[in-house]
Amino acid sequence: MRFTMAIGNVTECAIGRWNLIGNVTEAVHCRKLPAAFFQGAVFAVSQRQPAEIGDTIENIDTPALIVDLDAFEHNLDKMAAIAAAAGVRLRPHAKTHKSPTIAHMQIRRGAVGVCCQKVSEAEVMVLNGVADVLVSNQIVGARKLRRLAALARRARIGVCVDNAANVADLGAAATEAGVKLDVLIEVNVMQARCGVAPGSATAELAAVIGRTAGLHFRGLHAYHGKAQHYAGFAERAAAIAEAVEQIRDTLGLIRAQGQDCEIVTGSGTGTFEFEAASGVFNELQVGSYVFMDASYGRILDRGGAPIDVFEQSLFVLATIMSLPAENRMVCDAGLKALSVDSGLPLVVDNEGVEYLAASDEHGSLRLDRTNRSFSLGDKLRLIPGHCDPTVNLYDWFVCVRRGRVEEIWPISARGMLV
Amino acid sequence: MRFTMAIGNVTECAIGRWNLIGNVTEAVHCRKLPAAFFQGAVFAVSQRQPAEIGDTIENIDTPALIVDLDAFEHNLDKMAAIAAAAGVRLRPHAKTHKSPTIAHMQIRRGAVGVCCQKVSEAEVMVLNGVADVLVSNQIVGARKLRRLAALARRARIGVCVDNAANVADLGAAATEAGVKLDVLIEVNVMQARCGVAPGSATAELAAVIGRTAGLHFRGLHAYHGKAQHYAGFAERAAAIAEAVEQIRDTLGLIRAQGQDCEIVTGSGTGTFEFEAASGVFNELQVGSYVFMDASYGRILDRGGAPIDVFEQSLFVLATIMSLPAENRMVCDAGLKALSVDSGLPLVVDNEGVEYLAASDEHGSLRLDRTNRSFSLGDKLRLIPGHCDPTVNLYDWFVCVRRGRVEEIWPISARGMLV
Repeated sequence: MRFTMAIGNVTECAIGRWNLIGNVTEAVHCRKLPAAFFQGAVFAVSQRQPAEIGDTIENIDTPALIVDLDAFEHNLDKMAAIAAAAGVRLRPHAKTHKSPTIAHMQIRRGAVGVCCQKVSEAEVMVLNGVADVLVSNQIVGARKLRRLAALARRARIGVCVDNAANVADLGAAATEAGVKLDVLIEVNVMQARCGVAPGSATAELAAVIGRTAGLHFRGLHAYHGKAQHYAGFAERAAAIAEAVEQIRDTLGLIRAQGQDCEIVTGSGTGTFEFEAASGVFNELQVGSYVFMDASYGRILDRGGAPIDVFEQSLFVLATIMSLPAENRMVCDAGLKALSVDSGLPLVVDNEGVEYLAASDEHGSLRLDRTNRSFSLGDKLRLIPGHCDPTVNLYDWFVCVRRGRVEEIWPISARGMLV
Repeated sequence: MRFTMAIGNVTECAIGRWNLIGNVTEAVHCRKLPAAFFQGAVFAVSQRQPAEIGDTIENIDTPALIVDLDAFEHNLDKMAAIAAAAGVRLRPHAKTHKSPTIAHMQIRRGAVGVCCQKVSEAEVMVLNGVADVLVSNQIVGARKLRRLAALARRARIGVCVDNAANVADLGAAATEAGVKLDVLIEVNVMQARCGVAPGSATAELAAVIGRTAGLHFRGLHAYHGKAQHYAGFAERAAAIAEAVEQIRDTLGLIRAQGQDCEIVTGSGTGTFEFEAASGVFNELQVGSYVFMDASYGRILDRGGAPIDVFEQSLFVLATIMSLPAENRMVCDAGLKALSVDSGLPLVVDNEGVEYLAASDEHGSLRLDRTNRSFSLGDKLRLIPGHCDPTVNLYDWFVCVRRGRVEEIWPISARGMLV
């Protein structure tokens, strides 16, 4: 299998690694490639697709990121219905899935667009047809601001700010590009990360935005990230109730100075019901609900049971690669296949089998509490501790239904950091 | 900027995302592209290069993974000299750098080849000219074994085993492909992950390999991963001394049954000096020494001081994106830019500035103990907690010397999981 190209006086050159991109299986001839395209071996490549459409789950090469389509579609439908019933706009966060494919599925179900965290994520979304993107984050630096402004030629682009100097830079970039950027103020509602204090500080920054050429003051971004993971229902409710009061007061100040505040956006998979019912938030930027993870599996509903509005749809499929002792075994999914920042993965369909430790390429599993005996090559489904950074480790979603691979989607914004 | 292609009756099609690969800046015309190459938007893409050659560090787009070339080359030279002086073979682990570029630099300095952990990593190395690869891991499953055997047509390929059924599968795959595979037994020297017990169990498996067509019994792989990170010098020395005794006894049994055992490989950046001096190990598979990280920065030398044989050469460059309060600020490098499995990153050049918490796209920093005042856009260099999984988050090494970008290398095996 060779991938041949012609450039300048180089008439043919095998680039072995190119056959890893997109499963190219035939020779390809290209003319007039720019030199930068052809710096010998200087291309990074995609992961090979770990399966083919029609494969059984047993035939998926591992580790692989699999999406249970029934559960996944249930989740998309459910959140769309919740937002519609509450009369709030849904703008799901694409930082979770990093996939224009999924963004379009969300938009077809009524979402107004998506959120992104990075300009490069927004580029992937906009250049693949998403017409309305909010970068729910501060964007700093001339190069990034130029790229952000350029996107506003193809889509409605919003961005968050918490600093007047940044507002000036944004305005200059938008003016230079001849575009308008929507600007939302990030308000610090006890997340204690970025953000302006609610109240007069926010109202003052709104006034600055209002008089900056190239910018349109669109509203407030008030995300309480910590509250998403408070296990108790009452704790989450109280945190958002406090945020709602702060935002309500702030809105009063902004409106008193004659400014519209069209959008109040925030919330996440742990708290969306509170923001949706608040009468103050009118846009939800939930992300993880499409997949869920072990961390969200630990939060509780009003009755104290694990929340069951959404189904776990994302799994890492792993293979048993070593059976070193009676009471333990090793699978092929470690730190490079699963993010462990929010805890270790859970093993499904195998009560008593526990994922004990992750090293770079190994997952050590304890078998003390199971009677099942395993063989080399057996597959295990794992629920990642934290879905977002786990998705970011893969190039492909392998989408399964009724035991077969039905579709394979690229994770096109994987690794989009800048 | 458009990337245009022709295929079948589709005569021109703009694929916006392709302009993110390799910084293509001119139109490209291709003929006769296979259909699989062209499934609309189904390509995953590379990160854009975050800098250009000649840029100052201030101009690198962040987050970016930067390599200090002076420190990096010092580390390569130092380990090459240590191995040469000890009279042991050096086979650095490519799981750390995932870069054929670096592999070739190591080989030019005397390394006999590289180790990999995954078949896909080995594919990237071999298809980019590395002639001798040991997959220091168990490879399970027919598809992976076929790929491994295919590589043996282009390079000397070794693989580790700890299971007789896996030996039979390997032999069948090698025979079917008409190749020979080198096989090393992974011996469990208290790592308690994969591996056969030392002694008679290992000798028995060696005999099985010896009589399996398609396989060549090459030796033992005895990696004590846990010992790499024992802080105390004496603890590390004792752990490896025990492993050496177990391996010495095992070698006696294998030789007594008339089998050669050419290679005993193992060690890592924490313990290499003990294996090198053991008289039993004759190959070192050190990996992290090329970069170092905060975790290796915590291990101590004989005198109780932090080891200083190698210099920190790998950094995540981050930008200050929010200044929400007097005593804290936020940078743009979080969980997707830094692996936190072995602890949070360290801030360099800024005593008293502490990286306090990582969320997906944010790093929260504490400023209580510094008098320096920061501005939006200021850059920070961070030492990752753990180099290997951090490298796996990036597509490019931005290599700097004397404040300028001197080279940019692709991390070609980034994401190679299967």
